[in-house]
Formats: sequence, structure tokens, C-alpha cells
Amino acid sequence: MSKAQKVLVAGAWRDSQASGTFEPDNPTTRQATGERYPVSNEAEVLEAIEAAALASEELRAFYPEGVARFLETYADRIEANADEIVSMAATESGLPAPTRLAAIELPRTTGQLRQAARAARTGSWCLPTIDTASNIRSLYQALEGGVAVFGPNNFPLAFNSVSGGDFAAAIGAGCPVIGKANSSHPGTSRLLAEEALEALKAMGLPPATVQLIYRTDHAVGAKLVSHARIGATGYTGSRSAGLTLKATADAAGKPIYLELSSINPVYILPGALQERGESLADDFSTSCLLGAGQFCTNPGIVVLLKGDTTDSFIQQVKERFEAAPVGTLLARGVETGLSHSVATLQQAGAELLTGGQAGAGKGFSFSNTLLHVTGATFLQNPEALQTEAFGNESLFIVADDVDQACAVARHFEGNLTGCIYSATAGTDDDAYNRIAPLLRRKVGRLLNDKMPTGVAVVPSMNHGGPYPATGHPGFTAVGIPASLRRFGMLSCYDNVRDDRLPAELRNKNPGGVARLVDGVWSTGDVPA
Amino acid sequence: MSKAQKVLVAGAWRDSQASGTFEPDNPTTRQATGERYPVSNEAEVLEAIEAAALASEELRAFYPEGVARFLETYADRIEANADEIVSMAATESGLPAPTRLAAIELPRTTGQLRQAARAARTGSWCLPTIDTASNIRSLYQALEGGVAVFGPNNFPLAFNSVSGGDFAAAIGAGCPVIGKANSSHPGTSRLLAEEALEALKAMGLPPATVQLIYRTDHAVGAKLVSHARIGATGYTGSRSAGLTLKATADAAGKPIYLELSSINPVYILPGALQERGESLADDFSTSCLLGAGQFCTNPGIVVLLKGDTTDSFIQQVKERFEAAPVGTLLARGVETGLSHSVATLQQAGAELLTGGQAGAGKGFSFSNTLLHVTGATFLQNPEALQTEAFGNESLFIVADDVDQACAVARHFEGNLTGCIYSATAGTDDDAYNRIAPLLRRKVGRLLNDKMPTGVAVVPSMNHGGPYPATGHPGFTAVGIPASLRRFGMLSCYDNVRDDRLPAELRNKNPGGVARLVDGVWSTGDVPA
Repeated sequence: MSKAQKVLVAGAWRDSQASGTFEPDNPTTRQATGERYPVSNEAEVLEAIEAAALASEELRAFYPEGVARFLETYADRIEANADEIVSMAATESGLPAPTRLAAIELPRTTGQLRQAARAARTGSWCLPTIDTASNIRSLYQALEGGVAVFGPNNFPLAFNSVSGGDFAAAIGAGCPVIGKANSSHPGTSRLLAEEALEALKAMGLPPATVQLIYRTDHAVGAKLVSHARIGATGYTGSRSAGLTLKATADAAGKPIYLELSSINPVYILPGALQERGESLADDFSTSCLLGAGQFCTNPGIVVLLKGDTTDSFIQQVKERFEAAPVGTLLARGVETGLSHSVATLQQAGAELLTGGQAGAGKGFSFSNTLLHVTGATFLQNPEALQTEAFGNESLFIVADDVDQACAVARHFEGNLTGCIYSATAGTDDDAYNRIAPLLRRKVGRLLNDKMPTGVAVVPSMNHGGPYPATGHPGFTAVGIPASLRRFGMLSCYDNVRDDRLPAELRNKNPGGVARLVDGVWSTGDVPA
Repeated sequence: MSKAQKVLVAGAWRDSQASGTFEPDNPTTRQATGERYPVSNEAEVLEAIEAAALASEELRAFYPEGVARFLETYADRIEANADEIVSMAATESGLPAPTRLAAIELPRTTGQLRQAARAARTGSWCLPTIDTASNIRSLYQALEGGVAVFGPNNFPLAFNSVSGGDFAAAIGAGCPVIGKANSSHPGTSRLLAEEALEALKAMGLPPATVQLIYRTDHAVGAKLVSHARIGATGYTGSRSAGLTLKATADAAGKPIYLELSSINPVYILPGALQERGESLADDFSTSCLLGAGQFCTNPGIVVLLKGDTTDSFIQQVKERFEAAPVGTLLARGVETGLSHSVATLQQAGAELLTGGQAGAGKGFSFSNTLLHVTGATFLQNPEALQTEAFGNESLFIVADDVDQACAVARHFEGNLTGCIYSATAGTDDDAYNRIAPLLRRKVGRLLNDKMPTGVAVVPSMNHGGPYPATGHPGFTAVGIPASLRRFGMLSCYDNVRDDRLPAELRNKNPGGVARLVDGVWSTGDVPA
């Protein structure tokens, strides 16, 4: 049996105080990769929390410039070591190395790190607000303590707990990170953390600014997110595990940001199908099967109105699903989860149009699967029929009319996204105007005539949404600078001398930070 | 027995489906006011939730202009009926009508309503963000459903559940409010809600935009904050009741904003005492005894460094506390709560310098009370010695040296405010530089050379802080526009046609709303 890999705790790689070990799988072969990783015990996690809390105090002296330079140096080092990192990520995730990992996900990852650096340096995230008559000033500043980051399985780089969106946001805000690697890609996380530590050393930052553990048991995980010395938690993953952590963090008054589940309803109205049905069948099939459907924003429900164009569309999608290759799933748990979810949907009244077979492709896999249900049946059992089936699957709901399509929208839980396709000629506008206001408040991002799978890293992006998509509808996990504010506390300075203020709030504003001064956004100085 | 007053539910004043009744006290006489109020049962609360959810849909058509005009009309009506409202508030609260209620609190209340109207109209709260290359746009919009507001006892107007800061913020964001009156001033709440309903009718808004109930049992209160059709909750009040509501709301994934407790530590460094000890004794005594100390920001702990100037300062404050009149407390519960808290502090090792007697003034009252404890004793029992004593009381902690004063700061829980007084000559600067970074992260607002009791309603104000002062360190209950964002959800529009966008996100920007366009704040149009 191979020796367990080391953890990165308190600034050094060292043997874990392990309560056990685990081996990740290669999903393409369904066999273990041969590496062994430790399950950290409580003492080790408590030590990481304490080291992060100390680093949180020390880091202030390096904020923002030192922190920004660390993020940039780290991004450079990831690029310099891209081949090794991508190769490991491909082995652990089964995702295609050249197209997906090297060409898309790695540049996205380093881009996010550099955007977070820029947000820290320019103060764009911290909303500096100054009222001169009362001499009261405020901004967002790093909250106290480290941030625990639990990354998901589906983006081994761009949402990795030590390089992804939550990591970039927490560090960019000035918070140390305790990364809890996703169990399906611990090796990728290890290689990334090695680069992070070297970048910290090169910049002279507290080395405990980035720590990495691989797994804990449930009780120790609960301690991590609720400890008095932890600042906050970012979690992306399964709903059940997330809600268990949420209950513990909430009870301790510790912020926890969760991305839990989303079925991302798509309405395709009759006029749009009439205008461009074939092309919509292409777009939908491509979006739904991309990456074997393993995106948080995968279109898991399509609402259609009964009629001939809908019948044709369903047939066209069915043909495409049957013709498309079956992708490899990220992990054994995804294959079994998808099997269970499809069974649950069928038990709730959905009928299989195609697919439904586990192990239909290379490695962990599930055949491309379509289900359908009438609007009336959905309305009889809306909760079970919103079971998330994470993977290459979608459920078509065929409503009798616009009234029923609206009723369906009223029954949706909170989602990350919702889409409406309508005719360019305006023939769907009445239906749009009735459905859109209902769908709007159920989703974080409303799309028109566009599939939800792409998530641009731009300031206006919202990768969030009402519960249970996330834990709070006011925050986004993607989109800089907004994502940094999750890890800030609102910090007001009342009658504090200019030289004691943080740079962003002083009268002189040599960096040209955008500030709300007496109610007006300005990049200039404030008269002394 | 008098007939119970009516509740305002679903747009009309009507007899309550009461599970019981209660009578508020006149705190000056310690006798019941003679009015009787209902305890609403579950069916009534469920009806209010449903009416608010429907109003939440209807209100979109009136946002922002109709909502803004309602807030302004309501403010006008409060001013026109100021005499009756102030008189009732004085009877129910014991607060001085001309000085406190008419001259300070009522103008603050109407000012907040008008500021919220302005924030709605100008879009200053909603952070419109536009990225032109990707055509993705986002802003904060009202979350779905009504907002339950639980107002505190200490501001019968400015924090009233149907006229105060949370009310103004929720309505300003576009959310209907279900006000749960504080049991100590139901009559004031009733008079205010009467004006609100008339203002809604005059503006043609959904009449269920404002509803008012007076009390529920614990189980029904839990239903209110966790119901699927409620949007969020704003709560200001006791820590124990607040935490019970928080647990229920959290479990349902419903945002709840709480202001729970705060002892507002004040450091007074030796150089400051040397320079202006007498004047600081005046300032502190005035601040601590203002309104019989019944402010969330009352200075409940003072940290001093051992020495002659500290001894003199303590003596000076003691004399002032003994010479000052004993104020009337807001309610029987405040008197008993203060007695219990002072006893708890004494049991934990604090010694009484003066005061400690219930019923020492007119009506509900407690003698002006000072306690003291050494830094070493505090550090042995920091939790019990941070027991909030809501009222005219403060605890002096005398530390051996700056090291111990820092250790004390490290043990503070989250607070709304923290103050440091230091010498203008610079002799305290070393101590300041060590203490300030520690205190900074424990408090929402850091003051220098100023008492914390004043809370200006300006954009930069933070009336919030780390747990347990509030439930989340990123939000403020005072300070417009920021306070409105608590009741918004982040709403992104991806590839949505210009005429389907909310006005704040369209290319044309006739209102000159400040928007973050391609990373730069701008008030202009976006090229089509």
C-alpha cells in the first residue's frame, strides 16, 4: 500500500494526523489511481484553523499589493506547470485534457486569479463610501479568520478549493484559505497547492495563507465551518452534505455560502420552435450533453407547450441524444447518483424517452437520457419532479397552455438560471410577458434565447440564486468584484483621523479608487 | 374588559382571529394603558403571508415611482398626525414627548422614509452592473414575498415595524411588509399603520403592502419567518428570541437580518484622560445615561489602564452617575432584565461601584449603575462578563497594561461599535496601533474620540457587526442605500432584449442612474 500524501498545514507539507486514508479513482478506467490521501483528524483541522486565524492578522500588512502580487505569481506558476496539472486533472476527472482542461478551464482559472488581484488592488470590490459632513466612512474589509473552501467535483481547476472562484474571492478580499480538496481530484489540488505555497514564499506572505486538507469525517467538517476562529465558508457540492454544514455554521453565526443544486428550467415557446426548431434542438442537445451534463447550469428541465412543433422538437432532441457519444462521468458517485435520480423521476411520473442505462459509455457513464411528463402530472408532484439529476439528462414538461406553463413556473424552487426562448417576430411576446416575471424571481440569472451552460467571468455575472440553489439570494460565486464581498465585513470608521484610515478611505486618492462620496461616485480626492 | 384592537391584514382593519389578548403598560405609572391587543393565530398569519406574497407580485408594476411616492406621502401623513402619534408613543414608552420623540425621533423616521424613496427612485441601492461585450447585466431587485419586520422596544417610531429603518428599507426595495408590533408600543404601531394604509390607498398601491399584527406565540412566529412564501425577516430585539427565529429561518433557507445585542466597548487611553479627563467623564456619563441607556449602541464596557488618571476618571463618572436623575425604563421587562444582568455580572466577578437598585426612579426604573472588574478577572470569565445589561449601566475593566488591554480585545464577541479615545498629542499612538486592529474586526463601526450612541442616517453608516451583534457582518440596518440591499436578490439578465430589461439596465439612462458599465461607474447611456 502506497504511503499517504502529505497535507499542507500551518505553512508546511507534512504527514497527516490521519484518522484514515482513501484512494481516488480514474473515472475512465473505473480503477483507483494508485495515490493515497489522508483523512485529517480533529487536531489537524483545529491547527489549520488557528494557523489561518493568525495568518488573517498578519495578512493585513500585505493588503492589497502583496496579496495581489501573490495571486498573479500563483497564476504565472500554474501556467508554467500547466502540463503536469492538466495531466493529473485529466486522470482524476476523465475530462478531455487539450480541449476542456488546457484550453478552457486553466485559462479561466488563471484569469480569475488575476481578476481578483486587480479587484484587491483597485478596491473595486470594497464599495468605499464617504460622507464628509459627518466624517463617517465605510468599506468592505476582510472578515476575521480563515475561509474554508469546499470545491466541487466538476471543475478540478476553475472551482478547485485552492485555485478556483471561491479561493480567488477569499484571498482577493484578504482572507487566508483552508482548502478541503474534492475527493475526486486530490492530486490536482495537491499540485496546485504546491505552486501556491511557492508563490507565497516568493512574495514573503504568511505561508499559512493557503492550506490544504483532503477529507474529514462529518463531525470534524462541522467543527471546521462553525469554529469561533473561522471566518466563513464557501461550499459547492451536493445538497445533503451542504445543508448539514449550513446547519452547523448557521447555529454558530458563521457565514456560509453554498451552491447546492439547480435544474435550470428552460422555456421554449411555440413561435421560437416554429422559427428555428431544428437549430434549437441542436443548441439544447449540445448544451445538455456538454461535459456529460456535469455543470451546475445544465438545462435539466425544458417547459414546452403542447402542439405539433413541440412534438417535432422532442423527436429531434431524442435523435440527437441517441446519436451523440456517451461521455465519461467524473466519479462513481455521479453514475450512481444519476441512476437514483432518474429512478426517482420515473417513480414520480416521468416517462423515459431515451437512455436510462448506467455504464453505457467508457468508464463511469450513463446513457444520454431524456424524460418527459405532462404539465398536469408535474403540478401533482412538483417536488419529486424537481429532483436534480446531475449529468447528461433532461426532463421535458409539456404544458397544456400558457396558464399551465405559468403554474409550473410558480412551483419552481430557487435556481441558478432560467431561460426563455421566444420568437423574434413577437408572436410569443404575450406568453413571455406572463412567464418572465414569475421565472425572474426564481432564478439568479434570466437568459433569453441562450442556453445557460456558459458562465462568463464578468462583473455582471450572477452565479447564485434563491434557496435551495444557494443559501442566500444576494450573493454570487462567480463575477468579480461582487464575489469578493462574500468574504468581507462592512467596516465603518466614525471620526477616525485620516492617517489611521485604510488607504481607500483617506482624503487623498492617488490610486483613483471609485468611491461613493456624499452620494456621488468619484475617483478624486476628498478636500481635507 | 375593553374590546381588542383590530389587526391590519390583507388590506383591511378587521377583528383578529385571536388566540388571546394582551395589554401594554404605561411605564411611567407601571399600570396598563387600558388598550387591549390580540395575539394572532396561525390562520391569520398565514393569510397575511399570502396577501404579502400577492402584493409582492403586484408591486412590481408600481416600482420605483409609485413606491417612492407612497413612502413620501406616508412621511407627510406622519408629520400631519405627529401630535397624536407622539402622544401615544410617549404614553407607551415613557420617552419624553417634546425632546426625544417629537424633535428627534419623528424627524428621523420621516427622513428615513424619504431617503428610502430617493434610493428607490434613483436606483442608488441596486448596483446596476452592465458588461457590453457579453451583454450581461445585473442589479438588485426585490426578493419574492413579503418581509416580516419585528421592531425593538427602544425606538417606537424610528425602528417601528411599520415606519422604521427595516420597514423603509424593505418597502424601498419593493417588498411588502408584515409588521409585528413590539408589544410595548402596539398603539403607536396601530396609529402609524393607519396612516400607511391611507397613503397606500391614496397612491393606488396594493393595500396589503403594509400589514400589522401585534403578537403571536412562538410556534406561529417561527412559521412566519420560515414560510415558503415569505421573502425575508428583519428583527431587532432580544438575543434569545432572535436566535430562536434565526434557527427556523436558516433551516428554511430564508434570509433573516438580526440585531441582537451589543456592549459597545470603549477604550479610553491614559494620554486622553491626562489631556481631558473631566470632559471625558461628562461625555461618557451623558452617552451612557441618555434615554436611560436604552440604545443598541450604549457604551456598556469601558476599558481603562491602571493608574491615577483612571482612578480619578472612575471617581468622576461615579459622582456623575449618582448626581444624574434616574430615567424611566421602557417596560417592565427592561427593569427585570437589567436586574438579572447586573446580578450575573456580579456573580461573574464584577464589583458594584454605584447603583444596582430596581425601582429607584419614576415608574419602571433602575438606579444609574457602574460596575468594575480587573482585566485579569475579565480574562478568567470573558463570556459572562460580556452579558448585555440593556439600560443605564456600564462595566469598567481596568487592565494592568496595554498587553492585557489587547488580550481583552481579543476576547470580545462581535459588537455594533467600538471606540478608542487617545491623546491628541500622540502619546497614546503606540497603544492605539496595537489595540485598533484587534478591535476593528470585532465591531461594525470603529469610532475615535467620540461616543457611540449617535447613529447618523448617512450612506456610510454601518449599524451592524459580527455575530452575535447581528447575524451577518456584511449588512447594515441603518444607512441608506446599503440597508435596502438586505431585501434584494441579485438578478442577472443574460442576452435579454433592451425593452424587456428593467429601466435601470436599459441602454438609455434618462434618470442618470449610477451604473458600473464595463468596470467604470457612469451615469450616461450605453451605446445600443
